[in-house]
Amino acid sequence: MRPSGRAADALRTVSLEPGFARHAEGSCLIRMGQTEVLCTASVEGKVPPFLRGQGQGWVTAEYGMLPRATHTRGDREAARGKQSGRTQEIQRLIGRSLRAVTDMKAMGEMSVLIDCDVLTADGGTRCASITGAWVALHLAFEHCRRMNILTRNPLKDQVAAVSCGVWQGTPVLDLDYAEDSKADADANFVLTGAGGIVEVQGTAEGAPFTEADLNALLGLAKTGTAALFQKQRDAVGL
Amino acid sequence: MRPSGRAADALRTVSLEPGFARHAEGSCLIRMGQTEVLCTASVEGKVPPFLRGQGQGWVTAEYGMLPRATHTRGDREAARGKQSGRTQEIQRLIGRSLRAVTDMKAMGEMSVLIDCDVLTADGGTRCASITGAWVALHLAFEHCRRMNILTRNPLKDQVAAVSCGVWQGTPVLDLDYAEDSKADADANFVLTGAGGIVEVQGTAEGAPFTEADLNALLGLAKTGTAALFQKQRDAVGL
Amino acid sequence: MRPSGRAADALRTVSLEPGFARHAEGSCLIRMGQTEVLCTASVEGKVPPFLRGQGQGWVTAEYGMLPRATHTRGDREAARGKQSGRTQEIQRLIGRSLRAVTDMKAMGEMSVLIDCDVLTADGGTRCASITGAWVALHLAFEHCRRMNILTRNPLKDQVAAVSCGVWQGTPVLDLDYAEDSKADADANFVLTGAGGIVEVQGTAEGAPFTEADLNALLGLAKTGTAALFQKQRDAVGL
Amino acid sequence: MRPSGRAADALRTVSLEPGFARHAEGSCLIRMGQTEVLCTASVEGKVPPFLRGQGQGWVTAEYGMLPRATHTRGDREAARGKQSGRTQEIQRLIGRSLRAVTDMKAMGEMSVLIDCDVLTADGGTRCASITGAWVALHLAFEHCRRMNILTRNPLKDQVAAVSCGVWQGTPVLDLDYAEDSKADADANFVLTGAGGIVEVQGTAEGAPFTEADLNALLGLAKTGTAALFQKQRDAVGL
Amino acid sequence: MRPSGRAADALRTVSLEPGFARHAEGSCLIRMGQTEVLCTASVEGKVPPFLRGQGQGWVTAEYGMLPRATHTRGDREAARGKQSGRTQEIQRLIGRSLRAVTDMKAMGEMSVLIDCDVLTADGGTRCASITGAWVALHLAFEHCRRMNILTRNPLKDQVAAVSCGVWQGTPVLDLDYAEDSKADADANFVLTGAGGIVEVQGTAEGAPFTEADLNALLGLAKTGTAALFQKQRDAVGL
Amino acid sequence: MRPSGRAADALRTVSLEPGFARHAEGSCLIRMGQTEVLCTASVEGKVPPFLRGQGQGWVTAEYGMLPRATHTRGDREAARGKQSGRTQEIQRLIGRSLRAVTDMKAMGEMSVLIDCDVLTADGGTRCASITGAWVALHLAFEHCRRMNILTRNPLKDQVAAVSCGVWQGTPVLDLDYAEDSKADADANFVLTGAGGIVEVQGTAEGAPFTEADLNALLGLAKTGTAALFQKQRDAVGL
Repeated sequence: MRPSGRAADALRTVSLEPGFARHAEGSCLIRMGQTEVLCTASVEGKVPPFLRGQGQGWVTAEYGMLPRATHTRGDREAARGKQSGRTQEIQRLIGRSLRAVTDMKAMGEMSVLIDCDVLTADGGTRCASITGAWVALHLAFEHCRRMNILTRNPLKDQVAAVSCGVWQGTPVLDLDYAEDSKADADANFVLTGAGGIVEVQGTAEGAPFTEADLNALLGLAKTGTAALFQKQRDAVGL
Repeated sequence: MRPSGRAADALRTVSLEPGFARHAEGSCLIRMGQTEVLCTASVEGKVPPFLRGQGQGWVTAEYGMLPRATHTRGDREAARGKQSGRTQEIQRLIGRSLRAVTDMKAMGEMSVLIDCDVLTADGGTRCASITGAWVALHLAFEHCRRMNILTRNPLKDQVAAVSCGVWQGTPVLDLDYAEDSKADADANFVLTGAGGIVEVQGTAEGAPFTEADLNALLGLAKTGTAALFQKQRDAVGL
Repeated sequence: MRPSGRAADALRTVSLEPGFARHAEGSCLIRMGQTEVLCTASVEGKVPPFLRGQGQGWVTAEYGMLPRATHTRGDREAARGKQSGRTQEIQRLIGRSLRAVTDMKAMGEMSVLIDCDVLTADGGTRCASITGAWVALHLAFEHCRRMNILTRNPLKDQVAAVSCGVWQGTPVLDLDYAEDSKADADANFVLTGAGGIVEVQGTAEGAPFTEADLNALLGLAKTGTAALFQKQRDAVGL
Repeated sequence: MRPSGRAADALRTVSLEPGFARHAEGSCLIRMGQTEVLCTASVEGKVPPFLRGQGQGWVTAEYGMLPRATHTRGDREAARGKQSGRTQEIQRLIGRSLRAVTDMKAMGEMSVLIDCDVLTADGGTRCASITGAWVALHLAFEHCRRMNILTRNPLKDQVAAVSCGVWQGTPVLDLDYAEDSKADADANFVLTGAGGIVEVQGTAEGAPFTEADLNALLGLAKTGTAALFQKQRDAVGL
Repeated sequence: MRPSGRAADALRTVSLEPGFARHAEGSCLIRMGQTEVLCTASVEGKVPPFLRGQGQGWVTAEYGMLPRATHTRGDREAARGKQSGRTQEIQRLIGRSLRAVTDMKAMGEMSVLIDCDVLTADGGTRCASITGAWVALHLAFEHCRRMNILTRNPLKDQVAAVSCGVWQGTPVLDLDYAEDSKADADANFVLTGAGGIVEVQGTAEGAPFTEADLNALLGLAKTGTAALFQKQRDAVGL
Repeated sequence: MRPSGRAADALRTVSLEPGFARHAEGSCLIRMGQTEVLCTASVEGKVPPFLRGQGQGWVTAEYGMLPRATHTRGDREAARGKQSGRTQEIQRLIGRSLRAVTDMKAMGEMSVLIDCDVLTADGGTRCASITGAWVALHLAFEHCRRMNILTRNPLKDQVAAVSCGVWQGTPVLDLDYAEDSKADADANFVLTGAGGIVEVQGTAEGAPFTEADLNALLGLAKTGTAALFQKQRDAVGL
């Protein structure tokens, strides 16, 4: 029996609340169990210097955590004067994941900047960020369509993410914080609606894991993301 | 008629939601109209170096704004690598305001770190932060009482804040963003439950203002904070 | 009897020495008692990016303190790698105060950058900075007139500042460091020659203060700035 | 035919030169084709604050690249004043990989700090860093044994890494820079001598990849690391 | 004829005003022509970590320039967030020069921190800083003697500095800014009262210079510092 | 007998390995005894802002040290977030020394950025950097000639550097680390092939030194650089 009492292949309760942020072109508050992440998508009519004049767009992401999103308060990164390595790693992952399902040529020279801010952390914040950010990005692109900035939505597919882990020898889906901190191994999978793998990041916390473990975790991730894709479609009205 | 359509002495709709943040010892989500600020209070069993060994406590504050809390996205301070002058000014004000109503001797050697994070900004975020932070601080102290860390709540009084301004010659209460950006003058008042002034910060945006203006704005602030004090008491069950 | 032995409504000895800095377009060394601040005004033929092409000018300020301006040496901000919150708060105040009496349309697209550097600190450095900076700014504008860069001086009025406080229940004018550190409340007033309020920043250090206190302090400030305005006129030859 | 002309399952020429750095307790210059990384291991008689008094050791890593290790010169991170997100991601990976095969209890309260500095970059620098760092770490531990600081070598197993990718539909081993920049997907595998997976980081650069691809890449990685493990044993005389 | 009209071996008018800074244990305002530097010496009852417990003292220095000390305003280093390479080079030189004539064993475990802040720059600021700093340091040590912190003054000798240069083929003493910017070569000499060389820093701006040039410049420096040593003795009453 | 056992006027074994860095337009690995510095020269088709449109080129340098180049590991400057004063001083010296022998008009609007990275440090790293950097710069200019970017090599002369010191009263050439840390005085000389002095930086570590010492050290430096100039010519095939 895993700490959360959930079945090995059970997601936490998931909710996606589109339009949570009043000012953003697209936004979504995602809750996976007690983890809560506010994802916003901000549209800008220009691209970074390295893309200027190439007729394509850009999607990038920033990630943050409120200081008291966690059990004990963490330093405020703005006060410390720099983002941690973990923060940078996560925001690079979010950006890559979204770009993998975006037709950047179809965007023209515009950017979407995704912000994922964790209000409450209980494990799986990077995965929740990706899943929620896709909704915010979709809504921002729809906003651009309504404003006649875009003629079609440049998203080619859905993308969602979930973390899986080996808990006392059993592969389990969607680790919460208590489970994550005791798992032997954990892996984050970023998958597309069409079933492809965009990113896999597996780490052995204790003993190394095996190819069979990796495949079992991937199988669970496919199950989990199938449910997340449905939630995403519901949230954006597809 | 002011832009918001409110009467000159009318507050926006205010709500205080205590306990919003799951992990913090005290927390409050304050909404003043569309402005939303999440205030948390984190207890630490030590004081800053300059107070060590003096048998008293400390209350301090940090302030932040989610990048897309505003109409157009602002830079993430953590990414830029420093807090703006405005941010520092506001967090110093919040800290001073709370310390003014706290018996720091009664705390013993412990600290409370207040975080005020703006989820949505529509004017008056520093005032909302102070009003909400008092609730978070009160709840954190009550938590310490229940845990037998404190024998009584060190808060000596309530403190709340509201901004007032001169709009087309008329003093008005509780400016929202649209009003604030067009006011001739605005002043933030931090007042105590007993009617005292803790802080007053008045600024002429256009023409200088007069002593009579200042007193009229203070009168409105007293009206406004009277309502806020009641909301605070309701929120903490006093 | 206040610590300095001065009457409640007595300013310290004030002197304004125009042209102290050899290279600046305008400068003034202001002494208020033992507080000494060197104010310079540097003219630049361009405006910050947010104002480009709007046909108006800009006035802004920076503030610093020599490390040993104080009783015990403070960190050098350049060595620490950042300006303190206090420094940023003060330099923002100086800039706002000067802009309040400047016709920025009349400047055309040029900037004046004010530097206020405290050589010796004995209380009231932010107020002395404002009073001295006005002289430096006036002289810089006159320099521009002589150089035919401006056809008239864009200053609409004088601006000066003084701090007042409640000392053992008595409102007193122009706190020095010893008085400031023991005052129950203190307030900085930035007033115009025409009698208007540009800024008021009142803070209760100990017990909250009252509306009557605030008005008494404002009355003293009016007395004090009247004398400062005369000193400014003498310094610039008006 | 892949760009390098190598067979799909062929490593580049690999050499491990132990003891390259004169002053370090352990060091290794690893060359994988034209990629050259200097790995040093520095022993310190203390642990980071979060581990003090727990009777265990710590292994951590830093990574850097000489500015002209690459085809076009990159910024010097020391001059820019911060490490990039990529650098931080890589150095965290190196540290985790080495800790996965180290018995930190057996170290006692000491640290080993690994430095991996890329002299020439031609793809696969993070993997080469891990493979070379294991040699440096082994040598540093042996040094400690000779100095009677340790009674046995705390390394429980070998660890090595290699990147694989899908090139025009074919899974290939050990991508060089030209191959990496055109691969559809690439994955870095960190494996142990006993055949376990310590880390897997797979990223789809173009189209998402499949479970079959992932398994094929893992198979190649096992082949490649088998050769690397032999090179490591030769280098340290096991 | 050199630009300043001075004879080749003539110093500018020099004045040393001891005790200029009210709060510092020792201070001196040095003027060399139009160059003005305020030097203060601050005594602290501890040494830097690398010297703790060794029974000796430390002397170190920081250097700064007011933004408008120069013809055109320079960036404020505190605002830019770092000290320039030039600033660091100069403050290291000042510190080394003073330590060369201080018996640090005789200080016991205390530090003196020298601050040299340039109020007006017209060439030779680093040399003026050294010459003035010696006076501030001497006075601070005398202060410590009067306070019975020291039984004797730990200064073993005087130290002063002057810059010399080759101007249109002629070696000249004490370059001002106009001369310095057109000199073919310039050299800063830090000499002791006993005639020894503590530092020499010679740089060819245009054509390389010769051993004969170097010796001629050193000769001028000896002449110049002889006069400076007398000024120093006058300033401290020796 | 000096610690190294060398004769007073003997250089360490010197080798210059041109073309060591695969990607750079010019490079050289210089070894002076155990000191090893990798020097690269990177060509860029633009100049810094302050030179734009003036039809001339620029040569500048950056310097770094691998963390474990030294006996005990030093902080990584990129991780600390800033370059030390020593690093900045050295890289400024390297840049000035190379510019002294470069005809920057002959370069046209292009820049060469020199990187000197110390792989192993055993004294004299700044001097070795200059000597090696000249070779890298020469090779980069020759590369530009072959690419028809330049019609002739803009180097006007050779430049090389060596440190000398007074060891137990005897002037000696080319100090290694052990000698440098015990020398009474040391001086770095940067000399040209034609015998001119580009830079001299002499520092008394213990007792001040004399004019005779300075001249003796310069004499040794001329001897030492004569040998270095031959090595440079051999390395570039002159």
